Amino acid sequence: MDVGFVGIGRMGRGIAGRVLGAGHALTVHNRTPGKTAELAAAGATVADSVAGACDGAEAVLTMVADDDALSEVVLAPGGLRDSLAPGAVHVTMGTHGVDAVRTLDAAHRESGQTLVAAPVLGRPDMAAAGQLGIVAGGPPEAVDRCRPLFDVIGTRTFEAGPRPESATAIKLANNFVLGCSIQVMAEAFALAGAYDVAPQTLFEVLTEGLFSAPAYKVYGDIIAREDYDRVGFTSALALKDVTLTLEAALAAGMPLPSANVLRDRLLGAIGHGDAERDWAVLAREQLRASGRA
Amino acid sequence: MDVGFVGIGRMGRGIAGRVLGAGHALTVHNRTPGKTAELAAAGATVADSVAGACDGAEAVLTMVADDDALSEVVLAPGGLRDSLAPGAVHVTMGTHGVDAVRTLDAAHRESGQTLVAAPVLGRPDMAAAGQLGIVAGGPPEAVDRCRPLFDVIGTRTFEAGPRPESATAIKLANNFVLGCSIQVMAEAFALAGAYDVAPQTLFEVLTEGLFSAPAYKVYGDIIAREDYDRVGFTSALALKDVTLTLEAALAAGMPLPSANVLRDRLLGAIGHGDAERDWAVLAREQLRASGRA
Amino acid sequence: MDVGFVGIGRMGRGIAGRVLGAGHALTVHNRTPGKTAELAAAGATVADSVAGACDGAEAVLTMVADDDALSEVVLAPGGLRDSLAPGAVHVTMGTHGVDAVRTLDAAHRESGQTLVAAPVLGRPDMAAAGQLGIVAGGPPEAVDRCRPLFDVIGTRTFEAGPRPESATAIKLANNFVLGCSIQVMAEAFALAGAYDVAPQTLFEVLTEGLFSAPAYKVYGDIIAREDYDRVGFTSALALKDVTLTLEAALAAGMPLPSANVLRDRLLGAIGHGDAERDWAVLAREQLRASGRA
Amino acid sequence: MDVGFVGIGRMGRGIAGRVLGAGHALTVHNRTPGKTAELAAAGATVADSVAGACDGAEAVLTMVADDDALSEVVLAPGGLRDSLAPGAVHVTMGTHGVDAVRTLDAAHRESGQTLVAAPVLGRPDMAAAGQLGIVAGGPPEAVDRCRPLFDVIGTRTFEAGPRPESATAIKLANNFVLGCSIQVMAEAFALAGAYDVAPQTLFEVLTEGLFSAPAYKVYGDIIAREDYDRVGFTSALALKDVTLTLEAALAAGMPLPSANVLRDRLLGAIGHGDAERDWAVLAREQLRASGRA
Repeated sequence: MDVGFVGIGRMGRGIAGRVLGAGHALTVHNRTPGKTAELAAAGATVADSVAGACDGAEAVLTMVADDDALSEVVLAPGGLRDSLAPGAVHVTMGTHGVDAVRTLDAAHRESGQTLVAAPVLGRPDMAAAGQLGIVAGGPPEAVDRCRPLFDVIGTRTFEAGPRPESATAIKLANNFVLGCSIQVMAEAFALAGAYDVAPQTLFEVLTEGLFSAPAYKVYGDIIAREDYDRVGFTSALALKDVTLTLEAALAAGMPLPSANVLRDRLLGAIGHGDAERDWAVLAREQLRASGRA
Repeated sequence: MDVGFVGIGRMGRGIAGRVLGAGHALTVHNRTPGKTAELAAAGATVADSVAGACDGAEAVLTMVADDDALSEVVLAPGGLRDSLAPGAVHVTMGTHGVDAVRTLDAAHRESGQTLVAAPVLGRPDMAAAGQLGIVAGGPPEAVDRCRPLFDVIGTRTFEAGPRPESATAIKLANNFVLGCSIQVMAEAFALAGAYDVAPQTLFEVLTEGLFSAPAYKVYGDIIAREDYDRVGFTSALALKDVTLTLEAALAAGMPLPSANVLRDRLLGAIGHGDAERDWAVLAREQLRASGRA
Repeated sequence: MDVGFVGIGRMGRGIAGRVLGAGHALTVHNRTPGKTAELAAAGATVADSVAGACDGAEAVLTMVADDDALSEVVLAPGGLRDSLAPGAVHVTMGTHGVDAVRTLDAAHRESGQTLVAAPVLGRPDMAAAGQLGIVAGGPPEAVDRCRPLFDVIGTRTFEAGPRPESATAIKLANNFVLGCSIQVMAEAFALAGAYDVAPQTLFEVLTEGLFSAPAYKVYGDIIAREDYDRVGFTSALALKDVTLTLEAALAAGMPLPSANVLRDRLLGAIGHGDAERDWAVLAREQLRASGRA
Repeated sequence: MDVGFVGIGRMGRGIAGRVLGAGHALTVHNRTPGKTAELAAAGATVADSVAGACDGAEAVLTMVADDDALSEVVLAPGGLRDSLAPGAVHVTMGTHGVDAVRTLDAAHRESGQTLVAAPVLGRPDMAAAGQLGIVAGGPPEAVDRCRPLFDVIGTRTFEAGPRPESATAIKLANNFVLGCSIQVMAEAFALAGAYDVAPQTLFEVLTEGLFSAPAYKVYGDIIAREDYDRVGFTSALALKDVTLTLEAALAAGMPLPSANVLRDRLLGAIGHGDAERDWAVLAREQLRASGRA
């Protein structure tokens, strides 16, 4: 399959490597050129424009940082909208907002192209190992055509339905549940600590019981050790995500009170200088909010 | 070991049965007499008063519904304070508030007795099978003396520290984390649903990924099926718990914003007639709050 | 009219002085005896017990600090319940909780006495000048009998209805609206300040427009000057009030989200050492919560 | 003074009429042409394009519905940016977001023009009578040049400082304080109502006391009468405003917890069909949230 790939960051490199490794003909493009060297060495063609990555491609995958970057890649002159062949598929794998996805979906439809939103679940090391989860939303026929790609990128593809923004909503919901898990742990550890409970004890009670899951084991451990410089996901990126979540909720006319709590405490953490620390630093913000830190 | 037991409800019966089965001499008392028949048939002595359950006991376990009931059992004339031998231990296994526990701790100390707070994690069927988790707080020597009992009651005893209210705080924190998990799922399922996501899909994304834990599997399933009459824990009891949590936080001078969200939505659910439904009915309350139910 | 008065603090002294000045026969009692000297010099009889203040009284007014003090005055042996004549009226003028008021109402009824809740609106200087507002709740006949007293204590008596706790609810609602006004100003001044607006400018926009009322003029001025040591009402007392408000709401099954915000920020302010500052210090807590102070 | 005016809605008509009445040469433009007839009859020149309203003008005033309309008026080909003479002033009098204002400010600067943000306080009838308040932000020299206009439009001009977005922030803050006043009244009336308090009684306690201001008198009266079809400002417009407020706060890195409460309840009210009712319908939403309506 002829595949294009735009956006060779930490996640993109792993995903593109999997596609290449499975024998697909891959043309890659990145705004900053150096990042494609490794993939070129492994056999990928390097294009110096988005249009070049679209040339002859049945599908172009994008993994870019935010909505503005994605809009630029698609809508700017020479972008995907202009360059992708009619009938071809644009698979966007980043975390984006529902408004951006809807706008791009409409733009692709007008050009006879198809948008599939396929945000991924997992970290860069999992991307490189083909261990991601994929949430795919879009016309079933288009999703089916992408399945050979999904099968080498991830271990499981969850089908979100025929609308791309359904996949977007799942990804946002997943990250929202994670963020709130951390915020609630922040509160719970602070409360227990106020009654002389050692954080390790609460960590064990939670993770050996009802909360024996990665979300609690990974982030509960960071909180228990106050090890906020071990960064999985920064407070700044988390604020971006919860803002997208609240925008999606607003567009649906829905209050999300737990998201308000999460956002406000992220704002506090960032205001206190913790923007680039792991978002488990919410635990420190909880202590600040009660005058204990 | 001579053991007394006060409060033979669904949890108490299971726990008392484990103690009896391990060969301890057990005297049981319940305000409503009929409930002790089964234990009597299995060899327990039945006392018709709290004082009778204390007679000769090295330790008396209590499992009663709320703080008022516990205060009555301990402080009323002829209660544990009056009847427990000096040097004996009162092990309270219910979920109580920190104020109540502190008050009773002081009362027991004045009478030369010791309070151990040992709230349990798990349901009645786990109690009967000796599968509970136990969180024990109190003077180490007293906790050690109770260890033979804890070993037959549960699979693991978490040591909360020398103050009984530390165990109380852990239990409240655990239930608070659980309640918020449900509330956050309520919001996440509603948000995804507004974007045409099938609840089963989100359930799988969550529970096969970062949230592969009982809290999410059990309650996420109830939410996905809207099966709120399958009651594990009622909204009314949940409101009692979160109120205790907020009181503990207030006494510690600590805001708990996620607990506010949980309490307010439980109040809404109860106001809409769902007091005796499973607290996963928070998912329905989330829909009501956005005009979708 | 033979009148007793219990609780000669800053408010009580002013109110009792008005009653005395209108020619009523007044017997006063205070736990700490020295505080009654001024009233004694003005013609009041001083009783050394609550019972003494009840002796021969048609009505006993109480103005005590909190629910515990009020319960002690009424329910302790020799208290109002034991000492007030059948048919006499207890007029409680402090700010209390609905639970306490209901409990005392029931206790008085059992003793053939009547409780009128008549919390007051205003400060000590207004009390001394007979400028208070009074919110009276209780059986109409009892309220009518107290009217000669209310007429010299305040400028207007608002009739809350036949249940004492209705007056309690009005007083709590009034203080709640005030607290939230301050909290909202705290947020508004901080937001405007982030866009280089001088606080005095926002103060003028608000108070010369839609918010030309004492609540905004008094507390907006404190915020604009950051003059939190000019104490009208402390954060600690405000926390007590909003806690009573939330308890009243909980008893009524009602979420009060603005009260949650107010309480949490008061907790933060107190945690940061501002318990005895004016509650307008919420403006500083707002800056702390965003990392700006 | 040669003045242009774009946006002849209910507010714009009144303001433009004042400018015309003071003897300034006025050219007006509205997207929908019919609305300018009245002003034309009074002596205004009607332009059929934005560019026409800019022709020869020292200042162009705009009063348009939202940020998108304002951006269109300024940035579209032939808009203010293209048509306004260098050195001329654009005075935007609507309620806009800080991002939009910053963007337009930069665009005007690049074209050698000046933006003054001058949002107004008051309703259409006050606009027609010259009774508005004006909050003016922008370079002092430009604000001074507009003063003859402000003097006939309003009774007082508040100077927000040299940055247009400072005026924007004041206007948003004022509306935010108003919205929260209504939300808090919604909660207070519901709480008091739960204790059998007549709404009129609470209304009098508030508005004869600390809250004797238009915000409370106007909206408290609507709440007390449940007269939500007497529309001063709709829930839908209020949601737009509070969204702008939260965006301004987010851009400043600031949590605004009271704005979260306001937004969520507006979303609920709108979800329940009250989008076009007066935003005092928040009182009904409070009852819904507690299962009482």
